[in-house]
Amino acid sequence: MASNFGTLFRISTWGESHGGGVGVVIDGCPPRLPLSEEDIQPDLDRRRPGQSDIVTPRKEEDTCKILSGVFRGVTLGTPISIFVPNTDARPEAYSEMQTHFRPSHADFTYQSKYGVRNWEGGGRSSARETIGRVAASAVAKKVLKLLFPEIEILAWVSRIHDIESQVDAASVTMASIESNAVRCPDAHAAEAMIARIKQIRSEGNSVGGLIDATVRGMPVGLGEPVFDRLEADLAKAMLSLPATKGFEVGSGFAGTLLTGLEHNDPYEIRDGAVHTTSNRSGGVQGGISNGEPLLFRVAFKPTATISKPQSTVTTSGEESTLAARGRHDPCVLPRAVVMVEAMTALVLVDHALRQRAQDCLPR
Amino acid sequence: MASNFGTLFRISTWGESHGGGVGVVIDGCPPRLPLSEEDIQPDLDRRRPGQSDIVTPRKEEDTCKILSGVFRGVTLGTPISIFVPNTDARPEAYSEMQTHFRPSHADFTYQSKYGVRNWEGGGRSSARETIGRVAASAVAKKVLKLLFPEIEILAWVSRIHDIESQVDAASVTMASIESNAVRCPDAHAAEAMIARIKQIRSEGNSVGGLIDATVRGMPVGLGEPVFDRLEADLAKAMLSLPATKGFEVGSGFAGTLLTGLEHNDPYEIRDGAVHTTSNRSGGVQGGISNGEPLLFRVAFKPTATISKPQSTVTTSGEESTLAARGRHDPCVLPRAVVMVEAMTALVLVDHALRQRAQDCLPR
Amino acid sequence: MASNFGTLFRISTWGESHGGGVGVVIDGCPPRLPLSEEDIQPDLDRRRPGQSDIVTPRKEEDTCKILSGVFRGVTLGTPISIFVPNTDARPEAYSEMQTHFRPSHADFTYQSKYGVRNWEGGGRSSARETIGRVAASAVAKKVLKLLFPEIEILAWVSRIHDIESQVDAASVTMASIESNAVRCPDAHAAEAMIARIKQIRSEGNSVGGLIDATVRGMPVGLGEPVFDRLEADLAKAMLSLPATKGFEVGSGFAGTLLTGLEHNDPYEIRDGAVHTTSNRSGGVQGGISNGEPLLFRVAFKPTATISKPQSTVTTSGEESTLAARGRHDPCVLPRAVVMVEAMTALVLVDHALRQRAQDCLPR
Amino acid sequence: MASNFGTLFRISTWGESHGGGVGVVIDGCPPRLPLSEEDIQPDLDRRRPGQSDIVTPRKEEDTCKILSGVFRGVTLGTPISIFVPNTDARPEAYSEMQTHFRPSHADFTYQSKYGVRNWEGGGRSSARETIGRVAASAVAKKVLKLLFPEIEILAWVSRIHDIESQVDAASVTMASIESNAVRCPDAHAAEAMIARIKQIRSEGNSVGGLIDATVRGMPVGLGEPVFDRLEADLAKAMLSLPATKGFEVGSGFAGTLLTGLEHNDPYEIRDGAVHTTSNRSGGVQGGISNGEPLLFRVAFKPTATISKPQSTVTTSGEESTLAARGRHDPCVLPRAVVMVEAMTALVLVDHALRQRAQDCLPR
Repeated sequence: MASNFGTLFRISTWGESHGGGVGVVIDGCPPRLPLSEEDIQPDLDRRRPGQSDIVTPRKEEDTCKILSGVFRGVTLGTPISIFVPNTDARPEAYSEMQTHFRPSHADFTYQSKYGVRNWEGGGRSSARETIGRVAASAVAKKVLKLLFPEIEILAWVSRIHDIESQVDAASVTMASIESNAVRCPDAHAAEAMIARIKQIRSEGNSVGGLIDATVRGMPVGLGEPVFDRLEADLAKAMLSLPATKGFEVGSGFAGTLLTGLEHNDPYEIRDGAVHTTSNRSGGVQGGISNGEPLLFRVAFKPTATISKPQSTVTTSGEESTLAARGRHDPCVLPRAVVMVEAMTALVLVDHALRQRAQDCLPR
Repeated sequence: MASNFGTLFRISTWGESHGGGVGVVIDGCPPRLPLSEEDIQPDLDRRRPGQSDIVTPRKEEDTCKILSGVFRGVTLGTPISIFVPNTDARPEAYSEMQTHFRPSHADFTYQSKYGVRNWEGGGRSSARETIGRVAASAVAKKVLKLLFPEIEILAWVSRIHDIESQVDAASVTMASIESNAVRCPDAHAAEAMIARIKQIRSEGNSVGGLIDATVRGMPVGLGEPVFDRLEADLAKAMLSLPATKGFEVGSGFAGTLLTGLEHNDPYEIRDGAVHTTSNRSGGVQGGISNGEPLLFRVAFKPTATISKPQSTVTTSGEESTLAARGRHDPCVLPRAVVMVEAMTALVLVDHALRQRAQDCLPR
Repeated sequence: MASNFGTLFRISTWGESHGGGVGVVIDGCPPRLPLSEEDIQPDLDRRRPGQSDIVTPRKEEDTCKILSGVFRGVTLGTPISIFVPNTDARPEAYSEMQTHFRPSHADFTYQSKYGVRNWEGGGRSSARETIGRVAASAVAKKVLKLLFPEIEILAWVSRIHDIESQVDAASVTMASIESNAVRCPDAHAAEAMIARIKQIRSEGNSVGGLIDATVRGMPVGLGEPVFDRLEADLAKAMLSLPATKGFEVGSGFAGTLLTGLEHNDPYEIRDGAVHTTSNRSGGVQGGISNGEPLLFRVAFKPTATISKPQSTVTTSGEESTLAARGRHDPCVLPRAVVMVEAMTALVLVDHALRQRAQDCLPR
Repeated sequence: MASNFGTLFRISTWGESHGGGVGVVIDGCPPRLPLSEEDIQPDLDRRRPGQSDIVTPRKEEDTCKILSGVFRGVTLGTPISIFVPNTDARPEAYSEMQTHFRPSHADFTYQSKYGVRNWEGGGRSSARETIGRVAASAVAKKVLKLLFPEIEILAWVSRIHDIESQVDAASVTMASIESNAVRCPDAHAAEAMIARIKQIRSEGNSVGGLIDATVRGMPVGLGEPVFDRLEADLAKAMLSLPATKGFEVGSGFAGTLLTGLEHNDPYEIRDGAVHTTSNRSGGVQGGISNGEPLLFRVAFKPTATISKPQSTVTTSGEESTLAARGRHDPCVLPRAVVMVEAMTALVLVDHALRQRAQDCLPR
């Protein structure tokens, strides 16, 4: 359903950008997992507004509270409800939204679909909705770490606008990603990216770019044939994030320029196990993980909300112009890195539980 | 679940490439829809092997039979079971598969995941599995046409290997797509593509490329905020097709090189209705259709099965080489066009029913 | 999933009896429904502890707060999060529960299933969990009333222990049900029931009984053939309530003593429409509503928690005795009436939306 | 959805009583399970018409064919499609059904819901639909037996019309159940039941009764708190069977006449494990199995189809009479025993896989 994700490790997010707050209910979390707010807050802090001078200055602490499902420091196996209040909503900045549809935003489609919309903010299309996902993913990551101690989920900004970076997916570390505000592990490129974002913001404009992700220490056998292929569920997960326009796995779009002989990943025996000598498959074959690192990429468009004036129409059907007020990210990617990680963790934990369920007979 | 797709118009596909046959059960189809095998067969014929000299020569008639859910020419509202027997399976061509994992195919991952696999063919990872989807989509298309008479779903090959085409998405027609074996409406490019496919096949190699799709006559309001965004469900649908490596909607990856001001689609009033003057959004904003044509693109890798010898390992863990026998497509794209159409129709009909359900109060 | 109910009008409840509070997220609610806390509070008040001298004296106001999904008095079509804090939890009354399993309660099974449990209260097995259902049902009732203005959902206590009542399901009214603390519309029986409950409580014991329900003004055509028959979904809904042991629809268990000729409901034309002359079917035939009033009955066991000493075992495997402290209902039925209504409304609204979705082609 | 059952071990049934046949697709079955048609046929034979002189004389072999999902004698983990053709349909016996609604049958509700119906038989409301469930349950039983070697699912006729039986649920055996045509293990009562059924058939009438069921060797911990309680899912499963009117678990309706002290099941240590000294809970506490035998009962109404003339109306709204032709069971219970077993197995295997998935962390 619209606000549910997952089959076994299942989350329901709720909340608008301008209302009492946002939250998530996690159903199906394994019992006996040590869990407290301290496990969740770090990822929320990495996601929150105001964390650096290249993101929106909206001042939200995004402090989470676990309302259920945890008892004396461990999960009960019952639903975990996590709540994050909104504290710095400024609905007055949105007064024009009542009558003007913001171009390439969801105002017009929400109004058309529902016949009503919360015009005092972005409603459910706001990036604030992702708080619930990020909070849930912190729990998912803890489960994954217990199931697969070697697992490591990493995402980073690989391009902002036309500024490319040089990053080796095989060796990139969380520390290098977190070493700068734009979350690009290539320090030289990061500097240029930050400058670009500041410049574009000063022009009342915005930029997009690419986020790359990898998962190392992947177990073999996650993902289902046919509809719930691992890459299909990852694609859905990523395209469900605000501002995304594209997804590719392994060789992706560029791989279509190769022949089969060039593209196929030959097998070899390495350290006593079956491995591929290349990884154009991106760690997935036939929809199922093969134990090689997952590799995928997500395209984010430039932020729709800009302060430059744009042509639009009003709810009463008149042509007009609009220059957004309010506080917005000139570039969503630095914060979206955490969202990409989050959706990856949610997909993986769900598939891990599904595989565990079905693979129940002795081998 | 693995072999189920859709929430309300829900399909379950079954069958392996080398078994009694393949099929689909459709649950939730509206009652009173005129339906017979004649409605389904044309799309199966467009999908089937042996239809031209650039696809696999496997000789399957792919004749469908409706086993339930239809009475005196109309649907009953109860499950529609559609069956297509396999008639030209040649398991003997697969004897090496018992012991050798085909590179970049699903042999190794199926074996690892399940501890068993049908090595007498591709099992569920075979493109034969898509028969059920294509059959179901023929029903979906009939429902869509009754709900939205202007709707038109079109997909076509836009690039094979490095051979680009020139196609105007706004004016492309089904007739032009079907006018040649490669299903590229640019006749000049099509000729080159066909030549390339024949050449690459003669070398025992394979190629991939891109399929573009558009949906015209789209209703406003399909798609859900958050997880079941229309583009997210389309991304999942496309990445669930065999051999896909990427998906982009609207401006896609290229759009990330624009600024917000360049990228946003301004609104205007046209013919008395709200429209955008450009369509970089690809017909979806905030996850919900805005009435502009849907525009998206899918990347297909070169066919994994090639007859050139490749390095691989055996089920007993020894390094070896393998040169595939059997009959295979040197390029999956001409037939995949029908699969892209099919998955599009299945996503849209499901979202149409979902929107109809929720939008039940008077406006 | 465990804490989700419904296909289209879908609820997720969360919360334990002794934690921060309880709540529900409703996904799929139609947009533009007028809604405020005032619509929800009355049913919560009818459900809450401390409302009369025959229920638990636990003092909870059960004041609800809508955290999302409503804007300026109408629903947005996005998730509605409703929160009710716990204010009078007294975990100290449960200290023995840490080591002693209460007979016929869920302590042992939760401990066995999860390897952990919240022993400071009933956890998810507490009747407090039903707050979320009741809150969601108030929303469901409003939707149903707009879709089917004649609809009327009524439930009442028809027997406490061995005290039978005389109630005519065809004419019973909400006013007569609400006219006394036990919610039995037969005033004479009600008096005896109240006396029995007080007496049994004074003995440190408990009683159960029967709740009957009817739905008048039913639309024809709700319910699905096969698994999601209306009575099957009602049966599940009722057996998901705490302390329930049985369900019957229409003639129920007694109907098995009739022959087919005696049992069948003949058709007639009444007021120009097809009706049955009797209603042993209970308003459902072949799983689908036939427009006659729904009629069903639910059996509730005597409350498991009693203050008389009982034999039990400890978590360390020793035999022991236990006399419950804490505040408990000597009889759950007066408050369960509201829960039966609630689950009925949730089943009906979901089936109404499902039918609306599938029945989309012109008749 | 309407024709889907289960979360992880998921079945989709299809087919009408008068069409090409009926079938089922099982998704989520564990791989490596030895399986062939010989495992499935015995249960189909126990369910099929014509097996004795007290059931319908319709002559169906009900021979099943596995079309997918099994390779060289073991399951692949992919969907298992099972098909059973209809061979003895006689649509001519149903000609009056085109215009006359059979009382207490599904003709009127299907016509109203769908605006169309297959009047050449019972459509999806026919007991033939249960073939798919019984076939799937044979697979489920094999999985359960491997997971819980001690498990034993037994159902039997405990009452026909007003003829009671004396059966000890703790010691009843499959052999004693199968020792007579009515499937009542009390030989004396069985004789009277058979005589009653023959007599009532000779009168053109029908009878109903009760089926009791038990599951021994139950694992502890199956079932979920709140909505998917084990008894709630069993209640739904049973009420989804044709002709059912009621369900009770453990002490059921009779238990409501006891006080809490009389009703509660005290704990003791027996053979080193926690057990209850009585089993009024029916093996389930708080929705979760406690390791004691499951005990429940299902009420089946007298068969709706009788050959005595009854008052009804026609599709054109005129009052009329109808005397059914065609071949029908004068009493569904002897065959329904197999259906009750089947649904029990399907509920248990699904919950077993769910529990296995969630309970993934070390204890």
